[in-house]
Amino acid sequence: MRFLHTSDWHLGRIFHGVHLTEDQAVVLDQFVNLVGDSKPDAVVIAGDVFDRAVPPPEAVQLLDETLSRILLDYQIPVIMIAGNHDSPERLGFGNRLLSRQGLHVVGPLASMNDPVVINDAAGPVYFLPMPYAESAVVRSLLDENAADCERAMQAQINHVLRQVPADARTVAIAHSFISGGESSESERFLSVGGVETVTAGVFSRFNYTALGHLHKPQTVGKPNIRYSGSLLKYSFSESDHEKGLYLVDINQQGEVSTERIKLAPRRDVRCVEGMLEDFLKRPKLGESVEDYLQITLQDDGPVLDPMGRLRAIYPNVLEIQRTQLNATGELRGPVADHRRLTDHDLFASFFEQVTGVKLNSEQEAGFAAALEEVYRDRREVAG
Amino acid sequence: MRFLHTSDWHLGRIFHGVHLTEDQAVVLDQFVNLVGDSKPDAVVIAGDVFDRAVPPPEAVQLLDETLSRILLDYQIPVIMIAGNHDSPERLGFGNRLLSRQGLHVVGPLASMNDPVVINDAAGPVYFLPMPYAESAVVRSLLDENAADCERAMQAQINHVLRQVPADARTVAIAHSFISGGESSESERFLSVGGVETVTAGVFSRFNYTALGHLHKPQTVGKPNIRYSGSLLKYSFSESDHEKGLYLVDINQQGEVSTERIKLAPRRDVRCVEGMLEDFLKRPKLGESVEDYLQITLQDDGPVLDPMGRLRAIYPNVLEIQRTQLNATGELRGPVADHRRLTDHDLFASFFEQVTGVKLNSEQEAGFAAALEEVYRDRREVAG
Repeated sequence: MRFLHTSDWHLGRIFHGVHLTEDQAVVLDQFVNLVGDSKPDAVVIAGDVFDRAVPPPEAVQLLDETLSRILLDYQIPVIMIAGNHDSPERLGFGNRLLSRQGLHVVGPLASMNDPVVINDAAGPVYFLPMPYAESAVVRSLLDENAADCERAMQAQINHVLRQVPADARTVAIAHSFISGGESSESERFLSVGGVETVTAGVFSRFNYTALGHLHKPQTVGKPNIRYSGSLLKYSFSESDHEKGLYLVDINQQGEVSTERIKLAPRRDVRCVEGMLEDFLKRPKLGESVEDYLQITLQDDGPVLDPMGRLRAIYPNVLEIQRTQLNATGELRGPVADHRRLTDHDLFASFFEQVTGVKLNSEQEAGFAAALEEVYRDRREVAG
Repeated sequence: MRFLHTSDWHLGRIFHGVHLTEDQAVVLDQFVNLVGDSKPDAVVIAGDVFDRAVPPPEAVQLLDETLSRILLDYQIPVIMIAGNHDSPERLGFGNRLLSRQGLHVVGPLASMNDPVVINDAAGPVYFLPMPYAESAVVRSLLDENAADCERAMQAQINHVLRQVPADARTVAIAHSFISGGESSESERFLSVGGVETVTAGVFSRFNYTALGHLHKPQTVGKPNIRYSGSLLKYSFSESDHEKGLYLVDINQQGEVSTERIKLAPRRDVRCVEGMLEDFLKRPKLGESVEDYLQITLQDDGPVLDPMGRLRAIYPNVLEIQRTQLNATGELRGPVADHRRLTDHDLFASFFEQVTGVKLNSEQEAGFAAALEEVYRDRREVAG
């Protein structure tokens, strides 16, 4: 039994103002070609297919196109669950009809009844889709004692295992935060005010656990409990990840082997640091100027229009940081309570922090004039 | 060849603050049973399946359930187009896969390539789905000369007819405003600043034209060019409509016969008129107090809390009108320019218009106090 494990596509994602649909289309095209080349028995997508409950129409079209190619060109079944970013009902539309075409979408927990059984020469493998569901939903549908994420996951597992023979080969598909897993900045919390993690032990019965949610590819607890990682780097904190997916083989005895396959993005996400004048002398030979960049400038003192000048060379600079400001780890506020400062003193202090120099007399006059205008407007409203 | 022609379901509609999903579920349940009883060869839905581009999840679930029952329980194909209220891309998700299960959804114009061919003993009937598309979209995809709605419709027709033998029996499915058709208050304009109507003549080549958009069931131009009308009454202007659908038969010679089938809503939409005290003596024997009501009160002078008192008997009164105010057809404004009146005089004039009596001294004092509070707040903001 051979299948591809992917997750966290986040179609429709906007990254620092940039719509990533084209970038996603590029890697999904590679993905579909990979499906055609590796001829797996199934494709598993472990949630967060869309970035939000109501994705933009072009993201819907991209998913439609991708899945239609896999199912119609290659006749390979797809098993997909809703993650915490998906709307279960929207993702699950048409699921009873689509499952007859080999597209098994499990959106709302309620519809999660049957395992998807796929056979190889050694017999059946049970794929057990467990969509993301809040503990409250699990309590109302499966187990009223599912007080937290851990017990909610356990309740889902107990529920699906009821339909599986004791000695069967099994693949769990889930979207949750396993304790010990390493998170990044682009995941959304699963629980507000409670413990959001689940211990890896709950998955010990399965031959393989295909996880979604954390964006870094990693194993948790055991070698066969894995996050595939996201399709692309969705935050600068992921700049050192290698994005891709797993090709998983399960043999007759239920032993698992995995192979990591990388996907090549249209544009990389990189964090670089240096002096502005050095950046302006670039690009270096072979450097991809189109990448999405977070540039940290080491310059002291004021820097005029760094974004405009850097973008002349690197059009996709998305964020500029300053080591000078980062050095203290926080803004160097005045010791006095800011509520007791005059507007003038508060602004002068802010200006000095951001630019590194004191307000000069011309700047002071400009600020005073702007402030007077604001006061005048307020008086007119009140008048 | 026998098929059901329906349209304008507007799933997810909110009517004067009331979510109609439950009402829609009741008539759609009747509809599915009707499909099972009448065993048509196809079901045709001529657009505005949803009320808006992003329908609420429960509307998505209701459509999913309805279509799944028709296709899985009765194996009857469904042909459905997007109307002007639908998002073509969202409605069209999975259409290539779903069409293999007999669900033919034509969302965006681009995907409108093939007629749906259904055979009876006399041979094939060509169902030609033409989704709603703005003229600009038709110009970019089919015919750059499609300057208005009429020519855009003609371009779509020319396009689909290319794939149809000259003597074939045909059913056009379209969502547009045919000149001479009678509109109601719940349709949305199809064209801003241009002529939105299409002449019935463009459909003369088809044996039957299944139209959507206008909410009143009606024929336009010829007996076999028909609007099925909407699923429910979606405005008080439709209170005298009989909502339902058409059962259409096309014989071997291409002759058409139609039968009108009514659907019974959970709650009717009614407009009634009378004196408040008469309404408070009701309900009359056999009157359905749960109906959605627009009540026009004939009382002169002020009426205290009419909504609260009427709802004690008729819980779904949604609108109260006053003949007294309607009589002049417009508000009886003061002759003087309202910008020159004091706040006090302006309010006194408004109060008299709405209640029919002059402001008394107690009310005057209350208004003055409220006004002073507003002035004080403004001064504090400005302070």
